[in-house]
Amino acid sequence: MTRDRLYLFDTTLRDGAQTAGIDFSVEEKIVIAELLDRLGIDYVEGGYPGANPTDTAFFSEKRTRKATFTAFGMTKRAGRSLANDPGVQLLLDSAAEAICFVAKSWDYHVKVALGCSNEENVASIRESVEAAVAAGREAMVDCEHFFDGYKANPEYALECARTAYEAGARWVVLCDTNGGTLPGELREIVGAVTKVVPGTHLGIHAHDDTGHAVANSLAAVEAGVRQIQGTLNGIGERCGNANLITLIPTLMLKPAYRAQLELGVSGEALAEITSISRAFDEIINRSPDRHAPYVGENAFATKAGIHASAILKEPQTYEHVPPETVGNRRRVLVSDQAGKSNLLGELQRLGIAVDKADPRLDALLADVKEREAQGYAYEAADASFELLARRRLGEVPQFFDVKSFRVMVERRHNALGELVTVSEAVVKLEVDGETLMSVAEGNGPVNALDKALRKDLGRYQEAIDAMELIDFKVRILNGGTDAVTRVLVESQDRRTHKRWFTIGVSGNIVDASFQALIDSHTYTLLKATR
Amino acid sequence: MTRDRLYLFDTTLRDGAQTAGIDFSVEEKIVIAELLDRLGIDYVEGGYPGANPTDTAFFSEKRTRKATFTAFGMTKRAGRSLANDPGVQLLLDSAAEAICFVAKSWDYHVKVALGCSNEENVASIRESVEAAVAAGREAMVDCEHFFDGYKANPEYALECARTAYEAGARWVVLCDTNGGTLPGELREIVGAVTKVVPGTHLGIHAHDDTGHAVANSLAAVEAGVRQIQGTLNGIGERCGNANLITLIPTLMLKPAYRAQLELGVSGEALAEITSISRAFDEIINRSPDRHAPYVGENAFATKAGIHASAILKEPQTYEHVPPETVGNRRRVLVSDQAGKSNLLGELQRLGIAVDKADPRLDALLADVKEREAQGYAYEAADASFELLARRRLGEVPQFFDVKSFRVMVERRHNALGELVTVSEAVVKLEVDGETLMSVAEGNGPVNALDKALRKDLGRYQEAIDAMELIDFKVRILNGGTDAVTRVLVESQDRRTHKRWFTIGVSGNIVDASFQALIDSHTYTLLKATR
Repeated sequence: MTRDRLYLFDTTLRDGAQTAGIDFSVEEKIVIAELLDRLGIDYVEGGYPGANPTDTAFFSEKRTRKATFTAFGMTKRAGRSLANDPGVQLLLDSAAEAICFVAKSWDYHVKVALGCSNEENVASIRESVEAAVAAGREAMVDCEHFFDGYKANPEYALECARTAYEAGARWVVLCDTNGGTLPGELREIVGAVTKVVPGTHLGIHAHDDTGHAVANSLAAVEAGVRQIQGTLNGIGERCGNANLITLIPTLMLKPAYRAQLELGVSGEALAEITSISRAFDEIINRSPDRHAPYVGENAFATKAGIHASAILKEPQTYEHVPPETVGNRRRVLVSDQAGKSNLLGELQRLGIAVDKADPRLDALLADVKEREAQGYAYEAADASFELLARRRLGEVPQFFDVKSFRVMVERRHNALGELVTVSEAVVKLEVDGETLMSVAEGNGPVNALDKALRKDLGRYQEAIDAMELIDFKVRILNGGTDAVTRVLVESQDRRTHKRWFTIGVSGNIVDASFQALIDSHTYTLLKATR
Repeated sequence: MTRDRLYLFDTTLRDGAQTAGIDFSVEEKIVIAELLDRLGIDYVEGGYPGANPTDTAFFSEKRTRKATFTAFGMTKRAGRSLANDPGVQLLLDSAAEAICFVAKSWDYHVKVALGCSNEENVASIRESVEAAVAAGREAMVDCEHFFDGYKANPEYALECARTAYEAGARWVVLCDTNGGTLPGELREIVGAVTKVVPGTHLGIHAHDDTGHAVANSLAAVEAGVRQIQGTLNGIGERCGNANLITLIPTLMLKPAYRAQLELGVSGEALAEITSISRAFDEIINRSPDRHAPYVGENAFATKAGIHASAILKEPQTYEHVPPETVGNRRRVLVSDQAGKSNLLGELQRLGIAVDKADPRLDALLADVKEREAQGYAYEAADASFELLARRRLGEVPQFFDVKSFRVMVERRHNALGELVTVSEAVVKLEVDGETLMSVAEGNGPVNALDKALRKDLGRYQEAIDAMELIDFKVRILNGGTDAVTRVLVESQDRRTHKRWFTIGVSGNIVDASFQALIDSHTYTLLKATR
């Protein structure tokens, strides 16, 4: 059986740029376009040339290797000729291979927002599409507010769609601009449109205002649509756009879709989707959603003690898809509710060999529970967990011993009368019976402590050199003055780019940070000496 | 036309407790049960009495006012009598009004996980339900892995459901335990079940592993099911459970559902759903999802300049539901793309009178943009924004002047040989031309600074006495050593319980915290002297 080709259209760089708090630079857009190419997206909508300097600069050259490089813009204005519409001319002058025109298809908005007649709007759609085709571009039309428009005046909405198709648009995209349409009515309306425009020329553009962006996209595909518009991690205005990172695995792994549809995404690229999703979060400086379908840190994580042992034995009956197919991994959480089997699963994953009858396992489990009750969260800090476990098993040497530390943060006027803040840390360590004292300044207390710590570690100095602190996160566990602070430090080896997390908990934020730092240093030494 | 009653079953306190990183205390469970009652939930599943000390304690008395207080537990074990099954006896001894038994309905799991025969499992379901009913409890059965089970052996899955119903279960709940079922197949399977158990006795329990928990719940309702199980904000194992906070507004506001179904949630409670959602996030110490359907900070936020003016004029054509109905609000973002009208709207909301032609508005807008570029986020810190605005308008006196501060954190062995960490802060202030110097110890640098600051504020001492710091949140804006730290401090007036937020941004965490503290003190004095 031949499968239908389903096309993926990414609008992260255009509609995604409407997300509150997101403003892409040209450089960021270039990096994101590379990610999209790596994933195997068919169309990359890069922005709206002419709308702002960033988008104009981005469209000065083609920015994709494989994907069709697509510009967004408005149809020709009513009452002026194409040659006299600078917006359309900018689109035609850009390096875009395809042009996606946004057009009104709700008669109410034609009147109120455009202030022209229904006929003028239809003529604009036709002329704009014809101009793009004549200029050798692939043309498509985003029918804005299509579903609301269809409910208000079905004939007019269909006329707009038909006009775009007949004028030569490769794709007519049905947009649920307000995001309020539910799958049932959406399926019905798409069904009516396919009688006018073939499904192989229809696209869907859904928003998540009722939590249905993904479900609506798939409902449209079931009704015959063959292009899906969406964004990486579902970013977008208000509640976001359809999440391509969720849709792609469903389309490729679920039998109902896999049997019918073919995507431009390879199995190898699918296995990279978790890392692509996280890389994108890094670019937009957001912490990844730990509960995201397929790619979330917890998407294949189990906490329940009762299930844990069964999962390790028969994962396929507890997991709807194998985590490896999307580049994610199975996790059996070590937590308050954990039984010995969770703990064994985690130890196994970390490569720590221990017999399940070993009595030290009970002691370790008691340790973990006690420390988690204090606020430690080992599921987020593998390296600290590994240290705790190996310490119980007697496998961690006492590389160094911290005798004391002192940090001072001072804000004062300098000699020029400017207010400056200085942080200074002093650390006293014992290595091989020798006392080492170091002092350093940093741009904050934790940075100063880190610098002082790594200044002199005696014979371990070399082992620690490639380790660097790349992020730290602070969480207050109880409000008020009795608050307990949890600090999570992310470190990496500068040479191998391997990353690990360590944790510290204390009523004092500096103390908690120091614990996490010490764990990271110790972990580095443990790995270097094994 | 009479509408069908649709029942809402909340499992935040049971399945939600499987979320990685969440561990409820009894006190937290009590507060959450109150929230659920306030919302108008029909069933509150409080946990699994007997599984751990927290849940056992929680079930020592009835914890709901209106909702049916429900306990979760396993069906009787095969091979022993009911009287000899301590698990079932604990359920019957608890203060629960309803008991929800979890039962296997996939023959494969009956064999592998329970290790008993199919017939023994069916007998356990029947006897457990009968025992609960005989003890005067409402009984229900969660059919675990129902959809996978149905696909493997439809007759057996249906037999389990039928047995539960015939034994007297008020509800037979179809669980998509792995979360991998898609709406199309789910609808079909539910349709088959309704031929055996009436829809008015069927429930749906969906997980979000493909992003369809909400869509699947609604698909099941369309197929006849009349109970939905879900959680607050969709928390739950892996990718979470069906989000009741998303489902309730859709069911109550969308005509297709409103016309057919009646819920136990009132219109007044619906208007509180945004605040209930945020209160729950506060309890679990999570930052609210700004993009959540209906209740997210950005759910009705528009950034686009082109749309902004149209939205203010004709909101109903751009918003799928009115934000007030769910207690949320329309926002036209004060951001890089913000114009003066956004700013004026914010000032008006805070009760700051200023003429729109006032040239100081332009200066304030420039200030806001510059400071937001540095990392300030005024949308989260009303009090700091008000100070900034009133300063520009010349309305904030210089109550005091900080000349310098110094904080020291020291970790050392005390006289008893124990490791202790001490924090000490020194603050030098000028009030009315007089220099005041204070020193204090605290359980961390910020606490020490706060104590030193409030030790002597001269003639403002009294005004500051009722103010207290109740929480502070730290976010690192860029990773690595050049990180910028943003600190958000929440304070309250101990007498009025009024709360406010202030913000500080700096490369140095202590410096950022100090800025936010000073803003909070200044804000207190401003309010006390106006």
